Amino acid sequence: MESTTRQFFFEELDKRGLKVQNYILQNRFVHRFALDDIRTAVTAYVRYGGKRLRPAILLFSCGAVGGDENCAISAAAAVELFHTFALVHDDIIDRDKVRRGQSTVHEFYARRHNNEKGAMRLSAKDARHYGISIAILTGDIQHGWGISFMSELTTEFGLDPHITIKLINELDTYVLNTLLEGEVLDIQYSHRKIESLTPELIESMLWKKTGVLYEFCGRAGATIGLGRNEDPCINALAKFASLCGTAFQLQDDILGVVGKEQTLGKPVGSDIREGKRTLLAHWTYHNSTPTERKRFAKILGNSQASDDEVQWTINLIREKGAVEWVSRRARALIEEARPHLRALPESTYKTLLDEWAGFMVDREF
Amino acid sequence: MESTTRQFFFEELDKRGLKVQNYILQNRFVHRFALDDIRTAVTAYVRYGGKRLRPAILLFSCGAVGGDENCAISAAAAVELFHTFALVHDDIIDRDKVRRGQSTVHEFYARRHNNEKGAMRLSAKDARHYGISIAILTGDIQHGWGISFMSELTTEFGLDPHITIKLINELDTYVLNTLLEGEVLDIQYSHRKIESLTPELIESMLWKKTGVLYEFCGRAGATIGLGRNEDPCINALAKFASLCGTAFQLQDDILGVVGKEQTLGKPVGSDIREGKRTLLAHWTYHNSTPTERKRFAKILGNSQASDDEVQWTINLIREKGAVEWVSRRARALIEEARPHLRALPESTYKTLLDEWAGFMVDREF
Repeated sequence: MESTTRQFFFEELDKRGLKVQNYILQNRFVHRFALDDIRTAVTAYVRYGGKRLRPAILLFSCGAVGGDENCAISAAAAVELFHTFALVHDDIIDRDKVRRGQSTVHEFYARRHNNEKGAMRLSAKDARHYGISIAILTGDIQHGWGISFMSELTTEFGLDPHITIKLINELDTYVLNTLLEGEVLDIQYSHRKIESLTPELIESMLWKKTGVLYEFCGRAGATIGLGRNEDPCINALAKFASLCGTAFQLQDDILGVVGKEQTLGKPVGSDIREGKRTLLAHWTYHNSTPTERKRFAKILGNSQASDDEVQWTINLIREKGAVEWVSRRARALIEEARPHLRALPESTYKTLLDEWAGFMVDREF
Repeated sequence: MESTTRQFFFEELDKRGLKVQNYILQNRFVHRFALDDIRTAVTAYVRYGGKRLRPAILLFSCGAVGGDENCAISAAAAVELFHTFALVHDDIIDRDKVRRGQSTVHEFYARRHNNEKGAMRLSAKDARHYGISIAILTGDIQHGWGISFMSELTTEFGLDPHITIKLINELDTYVLNTLLEGEVLDIQYSHRKIESLTPELIESMLWKKTGVLYEFCGRAGATIGLGRNEDPCINALAKFASLCGTAFQLQDDILGVVGKEQTLGKPVGSDIREGKRTLLAHWTYHNSTPTERKRFAKILGNSQASDDEVQWTINLIREKGAVEWVSRRARALIEEARPHLRALPESTYKTLLDEWAGFMVDREF
């Protein structure tokens, strides 16, 4: 029975993912981009796939309050593009070269135009700068594209324009500012001594980076489904998605250390070289001997660390039981989230939301 | 009489500039930014000043069709922030260190956190990367902040929400995509041989980079003033502002070569080291001897060019009469723009718009 429900969830998740992808990649949008480098760059991460958990929770939330999820499809596309824009810019900031098993935008365009083989025959330095430039502009376009999808809630699907304006305003101030504040804290923490941080500070940063956009997805889906701004179900779904969002990020950090590169689509250990102050790293540090701490602190954030050093760090994180500890914390967040679903009437959507919550922390990719 | 009108124009321009600045810097907005680096970064270029020609044309256009410009103030703030976001990202792309006489965002935060003096004591390389990271996120926040100001047209000033949604959609698709396409072309052209370009290609790129946002300011101001989407005055003001916008960029390129660093607020000659394919450079190249061409092409785009080499290039541009030729082209665009004002009733606003057009190409800063 349990596996059947999970199977059903995967099928429904896939259906939404495909619908959202098809919506985004319609010719009427893609033809807006006249330049080859821009057209391929702004659609790249969307074509690569991804789990599409954000649009899914938005659509499920819309259905769970009795709304027609077909009328929320442009909002689902909007949050996916908004997330994508943040990823493209974050990949520059984190110096990541691989995303979803393919080159990140800045890496791809740097390589495309480098040296004799490259279309513009740039020097390595100029090619790297060109790659970053294209990636900055790509994220900017995706950001605007996402907002324009929000406006279609009214122009294409007839939502009350006052509600659309309220959602746009919320996405481009509260959500955006909180999300980017989370990213700045992520960078700043990586330059701070790990012992100066607390689990609470780290979890709050993780919520900002990830939870706030999930919260918006739950709230927006329910708001669109109900066609009004105020309802206990809206707050319940916002809180539910918000808690699950932080749990998702904890699981992401776990997979970044113990996941498999192939299913993950990015190199294991990059968080270590980048010096990310994850809960895993914090717990490990505080449960290590003075000698271990010294070596651990030296490797964490050393972009030149050898593969052996990174492997030693991963082993230490595993041995100290950090994975189990953080995994328990992620599951506790999901258990805190689930009761919020009680506000909803029984429906298939409610079952899907419950499965969605479980998948946030069960997933291995 | 003439000088009195210009004096009146400057006073009115200053009034709008101050109103827009005060609107943007209200505590209710600025307090949204909890982190010190973000709060100072997102307000920096606004505090530095600037000419505020975009919000001015928007407000004048609103008044010229009989609207109350007080109800367009949030849109004026929006276009100023939108322009600012594009500048912050463009400064990373163009590797500019100075803007409005002060450090660019990426440069400022790189220096703030470098070495022992810096708050985070980063290495030179890490500090440079931190500066770029903060500047990317700063532009992102300003972009969203600008859009949220557009939404205030309805939530604060009662504009028909369908019109607000249409304007947001136009700003975040047509205007944004065209503007960023102009920036990509600007980069791509700088890596192409100058003889492969034509004046038409270059002017089209300049219009995209600059004209399209001015066009939006004219259209949005008139639309808000009239409270409807369709009217001959809307098209007239859009076309007027669009043509003046390209002229503005031509004057910008002239000042970038023959302007004074102090009044300009940025180093003279940076366009040459960056290899910008301006109309000035194109005209000069085509009116030079083979020996001059060879040296000119070698210096243009050489980031390591000496001050003497840059000065030689500037002298060549002056001697060949490129400045006069491009200046004539800019004035011709203004003369093409002016007749569009005939659609408007007589008013002080109409006089201000006419003066505004003249200033776009007379200005020395």
